Amino acid sequence: MHTDRQEPDRIQDDVPHPAERPDPPREDGEEERAYGVEPEFVEEVVERLHAGRRDELRAELDTLHPADIADLIEQLGHDDRESLIGVLRPDFDGEVLSYLNPDLREEIVELFEPKELAAAVAELDTDDAVDVIEDLDEDTRREVLENLPAADRALVQENLTYDEYTAGRLMQRDLVAVPQFWTVGKTIDYVRAATDELPEDFYDIFVVDPMHRVVGAVPLSRLLRQKRSVRIADLVTGEVDTIPATMDQEEVANLFRQYALVSAPVVDAGGRLIGVITVDDVVHIIDEEAEDDIGKLGGVGDTSIYRSVLETSRSRISWLGLNLFTAFAAAGVISLFEATIEQIVALAVLMPITASMGGNAGTQTLTVAVRALATRELSSSNAPRVVGKEVLVGLLNGAVFATLVGAIAATWFEPMIGLVIGCAMVINLFVAGLCGVLIPIGLDRLGVDPAVASSVFLTTMTDVIGFLSFLGLASLLLL
Amino acid sequence: MHTDRQEPDRIQDDVPHPAERPDPPREDGEEERAYGVEPEFVEEVVERLHAGRRDELRAELDTLHPADIADLIEQLGHDDRESLIGVLRPDFDGEVLSYLNPDLREEIVELFEPKELAAAVAELDTDDAVDVIEDLDEDTRREVLENLPAADRALVQENLTYDEYTAGRLMQRDLVAVPQFWTVGKTIDYVRAATDELPEDFYDIFVVDPMHRVVGAVPLSRLLRQKRSVRIADLVTGEVDTIPATMDQEEVANLFRQYALVSAPVVDAGGRLIGVITVDDVVHIIDEEAEDDIGKLGGVGDTSIYRSVLETSRSRISWLGLNLFTAFAAAGVISLFEATIEQIVALAVLMPITASMGGNAGTQTLTVAVRALATRELSSSNAPRVVGKEVLVGLLNGAVFATLVGAIAATWFEPMIGLVIGCAMVINLFVAGLCGVLIPIGLDRLGVDPAVASSVFLTTMTDVIGFLSFLGLASLLLL
Repeated sequence: MHTDRQEPDRIQDDVPHPAERPDPPREDGEEERAYGVEPEFVEEVVERLHAGRRDELRAELDTLHPADIADLIEQLGHDDRESLIGVLRPDFDGEVLSYLNPDLREEIVELFEPKELAAAVAELDTDDAVDVIEDLDEDTRREVLENLPAADRALVQENLTYDEYTAGRLMQRDLVAVPQFWTVGKTIDYVRAATDELPEDFYDIFVVDPMHRVVGAVPLSRLLRQKRSVRIADLVTGEVDTIPATMDQEEVANLFRQYALVSAPVVDAGGRLIGVITVDDVVHIIDEEAEDDIGKLGGVGDTSIYRSVLETSRSRISWLGLNLFTAFAAAGVISLFEATIEQIVALAVLMPITASMGGNAGTQTLTVAVRALATRELSSSNAPRVVGKEVLVGLLNGAVFATLVGAIAATWFEPMIGLVIGCAMVINLFVAGLCGVLIPIGLDRLGVDPAVASSVFLTTMTDVIGFLSFLGLASLLLL
Repeated sequence: MHTDRQEPDRIQDDVPHPAERPDPPREDGEEERAYGVEPEFVEEVVERLHAGRRDELRAELDTLHPADIADLIEQLGHDDRESLIGVLRPDFDGEVLSYLNPDLREEIVELFEPKELAAAVAELDTDDAVDVIEDLDEDTRREVLENLPAADRALVQENLTYDEYTAGRLMQRDLVAVPQFWTVGKTIDYVRAATDELPEDFYDIFVVDPMHRVVGAVPLSRLLRQKRSVRIADLVTGEVDTIPATMDQEEVANLFRQYALVSAPVVDAGGRLIGVITVDDVVHIIDEEAEDDIGKLGGVGDTSIYRSVLETSRSRISWLGLNLFTAFAAAGVISLFEATIEQIVALAVLMPITASMGGNAGTQTLTVAVRALATRELSSSNAPRVVGKEVLVGLLNGAVFATLVGAIAATWFEPMIGLVIGCAMVINLFVAGLCGVLIPIGLDRLGVDPAVASSVFLTTMTDVIGFLSFLGLASLLLL
């Protein structure tokens, strides 16, 4: 992890320096960037759009990777985006849609006629087509589906029968499946002959029994190594990880991650092979899930920068509203001690410190716990140990900061105030450590996503305990 | 994204329900879990460890995937972990090491003799071997290297000449490279004959010129489709994305993500092919980078749950220390208004509200900006638009909460206090929106990682402005 870049040079001492030792890494990130579009290029495109040099632009964009065209569309402002789509329209590459940010894609697809959209989507693999079609409004979706070739339509509609965020939605329908009794030679001949029906890229050949149930998988590199006479059934080793079509995409990602898979077969309720999920889809899910966790911990439902002001504002209000409740709970605690504060105004000056330190220490624990729950590292087997550890860390750091803050407060105001704030600090950092790990574990057991709700409960606790312990101790000891 | 699960049922109306419609997804996540070890299994293992039934245990664990053995080790307590390693020791599978959490791996490798470790590491691919060896202390590393077979040692040492977190460290050295003039048939024959020197899994055949510079890549599925007489050079389409060995791993991950790659060739400074990076390594990096961002935003250097109490406590102290500075800055602002608070104690009750709301609104903006910078969606081309949007969102939500909080405060205390807190709220949410996006962009331009430092600057701003605007306006309007 980046934060652990300790002694990166130490290693150099032990190893020979070959003649072709590469150049040292360049310091400026920009120059090494080997993908996507540069800001200068974006400016150039905008200039040409404004100057109406459309044919020239179309010719240049024709040489770009669809991912880069998607990147370009993302970088443009709203109006330029529309005129660029106008330029690309006559021969629009459907792949661009599947590389676009989903929020932006919703905006872009509205610029097309359903027929044009169907033509673009027809070029895509089933999983990518489903990805585009599932977000359309009902009418557009129906029209697009009607304009798809019948075979594509059937596959897309079948995928759509599965719930969103399940393996059934993600799977690619084209795949290579052969019976157990085939040989390597026959399999290769089949692939050579059936090239039109096969997916563009595939990594495993699946071996099925007469009921089309998965018996095993043979990676292409294993197939390629063998003589033509070898039986396919003999190449299958170990159990293959089949994915039920109803499995949640987060579980799918965990499965790929756990066993470092490149592709895996998807089966229906009867165990029949119906599709395949490849790792490139899983990369998207891992990104999405991480984004999701980051967004929830930061109190935003969606980390996309492509939403409108109103949508963004609305999506954040619920979180701020909850926080307002917390803030008033804290204000309520303070109001209990109005008389004390009136006598010693120094308390008003110092009181945010305990609450703030508790909130931050609790957030540290919470971040670790939420992430460990998401990656399944924190389980019922090790939960008691982790809770114990976090409580100890809280007490230890509480002691450290109690000394520090106590000394400062004692110097600034008077010794007894230093003692009060020091004790309050230990109490609050202990509570922060305890709640920081117990709240997410508790929510997880109740079936609530710990990333989204933990933080409010935690800050309520650390604010209330922070003010209560500080002002309460002050009332007892100073008045 | 999960937060957008709107109308998941709407789709069902448009599509036929085939007879083999799958079972609805099960509600309880546990049952669907198809990987890793269950808590019951962990308990069983612990029982057998304590009962000394080692042979029985060893036989059972022999059937497990190395990833699951790693999982099991992670779930055990410290002492049980040691005895389990004792059981596994005689014939330890090196793969287990590469699946272990890196923090825990450091603890586990210390239980082995360098010779045993060398034997375990020798089974691994270069990239996984490097991953284990790079974390060893200097003496152990030298001993392990000495005990490796000479060919492996040379490759591992060469990878170690590259900086940590670069492509050179990640790359797998075994690969399949063929000259341009070969045919499909000759390539297949070569793979069949050279099977011992080849990596266990590979996805692309790389085509090189006589100087060993990469000319192109041919995915295995494309190779397999072609007749034996086709020339390899004719199968290479488009430019291949080569990765300089000095490229940062984050850039590598972005490249794979951008173009949905499965494997990519790594080249030295002269453009010669020296290794290959495959997507399973990239999945780890994406996880690590996301973990890194989550950790930094949460104020923890490392989200691992396997560190000791002391290490964990120490790693969090610097962040809490910075936060203490922020808290004292806020206290300093409050102390300017001691006289005002002494006259109107209600101010002390309400003052945390403005600061807290500003902090939360700012964190929302910050989360989005930091993530958009990390995934390169936020660039100089669209920065002004994003800043403008966030400021508008801040003003809009400021107005909403000003009204709400103002009304509550006016009822609780007096109308003028409601007006003061309302105005302060608009000011602070405007500042929060502005700083929430400008601080990470500014840090990014200065070459500082925005995930790690933004949050402190932001809370300092929102605390200071929150207290200053509320208490300042109160002094002006209420006294």
